[in-house]
Amino acid sequence: MTTPTREQCLALDRTDPLGSRRAAFRLPEGLIYLDGNSLGALTVGAERSVAQAVGVQWGVDLIRSWNVHGWIDYPATLGERVGRLIGAAPGETLVCDSTSVDLFKLAAAASLARGDRTKIVTEAGNFPTDLYILQGLSKLSPQIEVLAVPRERIHEVIDSDTFLVVLTHVHYRTAQMYDLAEMSTRAHAMGARILWDLSHSVGAVPVDLRATEADFAIGCTYKYLNGGPGSPGFLYVRRELQEGLMPVLSGWLGDARPFEFLDDYVPAPGVDRHRCGTPPVLAFAALDGALQAFDGVDMAEVRRKSVQLSELFIELVEALPGAKALSLASPRDPARRGSHVSFAHADGYPLMQRLIARGVVGDFRAPDLLRFGFTPLYLRFVDVWDAVRILGEELAAVPEAPSQGVVRSKVT
Amino acid sequence: MTTPTREQCLALDRTDPLGSRRAAFRLPEGLIYLDGNSLGALTVGAERSVAQAVGVQWGVDLIRSWNVHGWIDYPATLGERVGRLIGAAPGETLVCDSTSVDLFKLAAAASLARGDRTKIVTEAGNFPTDLYILQGLSKLSPQIEVLAVPRERIHEVIDSDTFLVVLTHVHYRTAQMYDLAEMSTRAHAMGARILWDLSHSVGAVPVDLRATEADFAIGCTYKYLNGGPGSPGFLYVRRELQEGLMPVLSGWLGDARPFEFLDDYVPAPGVDRHRCGTPPVLAFAALDGALQAFDGVDMAEVRRKSVQLSELFIELVEALPGAKALSLASPRDPARRGSHVSFAHADGYPLMQRLIARGVVGDFRAPDLLRFGFTPLYLRFVDVWDAVRILGEELAAVPEAPSQGVVRSKVT
Repeated sequence: MTTPTREQCLALDRTDPLGSRRAAFRLPEGLIYLDGNSLGALTVGAERSVAQAVGVQWGVDLIRSWNVHGWIDYPATLGERVGRLIGAAPGETLVCDSTSVDLFKLAAAASLARGDRTKIVTEAGNFPTDLYILQGLSKLSPQIEVLAVPRERIHEVIDSDTFLVVLTHVHYRTAQMYDLAEMSTRAHAMGARILWDLSHSVGAVPVDLRATEADFAIGCTYKYLNGGPGSPGFLYVRRELQEGLMPVLSGWLGDARPFEFLDDYVPAPGVDRHRCGTPPVLAFAALDGALQAFDGVDMAEVRRKSVQLSELFIELVEALPGAKALSLASPRDPARRGSHVSFAHADGYPLMQRLIARGVVGDFRAPDLLRFGFTPLYLRFVDVWDAVRILGEELAAVPEAPSQGVVRSKVT
Repeated sequence: MTTPTREQCLALDRTDPLGSRRAAFRLPEGLIYLDGNSLGALTVGAERSVAQAVGVQWGVDLIRSWNVHGWIDYPATLGERVGRLIGAAPGETLVCDSTSVDLFKLAAAASLARGDRTKIVTEAGNFPTDLYILQGLSKLSPQIEVLAVPRERIHEVIDSDTFLVVLTHVHYRTAQMYDLAEMSTRAHAMGARILWDLSHSVGAVPVDLRATEADFAIGCTYKYLNGGPGSPGFLYVRRELQEGLMPVLSGWLGDARPFEFLDDYVPAPGVDRHRCGTPPVLAFAALDGALQAFDGVDMAEVRRKSVQLSELFIELVEALPGAKALSLASPRDPARRGSHVSFAHADGYPLMQRLIARGVVGDFRAPDLLRFGFTPLYLRFVDVWDAVRILGEELAAVPEAPSQGVVRSKVT
């Protein structure tokens, strides 16, 4: 079977309904960026928004900007815009703090309502911060047990002693994807709440939190949402649960009357109570501008192209003469896969370094994974074709004996 | 007694050893900004640093910037620079998260080591987030009692059941200042730890955490440090206590081996363990640039000018014909006062609005406080003189009967 040619890829780009979105991004000339699942690219919107926030809002309007430029409302207004991408109703989503802190907030708040239940169920090999944050909570509340088991055992360990199930929708290594509705059903059948980490989903995979009866969610805005390095996390609380959920990280901006400066905390109505300290405005301004790239975008269209790009990549890679050195570490079925694709390679670290040196930027996850992210708003089919050609050349140049891969720092 | 003339103030500015620092700031023409204790002004350094972080680091170097531009090290490198201003030794200070989250981190970690002690002592009328965060911790750990008492009772309520004393060095309303060493001595005599909130001190008042035997500290970088709206907080842990302090908010970047992606949290050595999620780089970049304004500055010189500006302000205000409508709400003794001055006025809210309309920006704290901040790096003596002249004109124009002050939102 013949694989698509470069010309066929160029033709796909010409008719791509999302093709025009690429103009919203500032992409370095000659770089094929397959790491938007780690740090999304800069947009024209973010660049303008930050310059405006610094030069005019901070520089000229100073303290008045908290009101006149809506700084104080950023967690809620950006929350609504992120909420639209994950099937939240208005008033269910807040952009604030980091993903890690947001997980702590919701898990700690949920633990206040746990009654006699003692168990949090999560997946072994989940993204480390999810595990570590839950472990931290159980240090403070030693009655709470954090049970991390392999994916295939999650179902069986959710029991009547479980008050919370914490899962990552799309796995950061393999892109393996849970069925949101199925897991909600299982958790609810046992009387537990479910909390989804959407860090590797939002902006790439359609998520409908309300339709799938999620209770809580958190996620990251610096990957597919292109909010900028370390841009704030978000949190979601299903409306029906909001009034019963009392914050533990109860900061002044989550109080019902923050500007009356009173001594006793009274939670703000709804999701706003999960605000905590003063928000980092410049980071919010970047996200504000970045989200313009999603204005009017249909997430189903994003998903369709994500699958096309990923399928093309897998097909081309597996047709390479050197393909036998690689093994697909992501689900082959696109319905069970997020928007990145990982291949294991015995000598993955230096191979990825050589790809990066040639302008194909993916990343490496120890011990042996090459990870490639597909961002439908700015990636072209021809980029995938060119990346695989270069990968093929580097595979052909790899020494036969695998060397010891060196683990290097890189932020997921 | 005659008060200083405008010409005398201009003469003071000409010989002011900090006078040249003003050139580092982008101040709007014609504005007298007396609210740098709430949101510090934009610096040329911050503007450049953010533009570079966005356009080059994010836009061009993308994911590689975590290493090549030191993003991953920002919490530590900026921590050292802030630490220098508060008498910390190297490796004791970290810039991260918000002040509120940082307080939770340290108070929660301290609570893990509390033994049989159950009490946290703090001040009634402390900045609300300090009270609210401690109240949140006691929701999760109901054995912990948060006792908030008036300042004059703090001494007596610190007892052998107290594990932590949480105080704000300079009060946000009155600028009343604690004696750091005296309070450390009292807390330590009773076997308690002491945690200082330095939000209204850092960059304005010399603080020597090591000499005064502080255990923990937190603070804010968007006031006198000019880090930008909502710029990250900082935390300090005395070196001798670091290994015994286990994080509760244990995020992946506080792990000893974050890039090995393991399932069980192992705290990083030293203060680094209190890192949590991915840092908001653009906010850090702003602070990075802003701190250049403090390069080579002697905090004793800053304090000297702060006292001079504040004393000049009080003297001029109290000599105004309309001064009887105002009463000083800050300590008269500069040795017991931080770098802002508050006057109570029965009709304070509309009066402050009129001052702002005339280009004199202070702020208002319910029910009746006019608050004026003195930032030695960019404020001139003549600014104080001009501000008081305008205040005098507006006082003369105030209607006799006090109206109902309206509480409006403003971020401290």
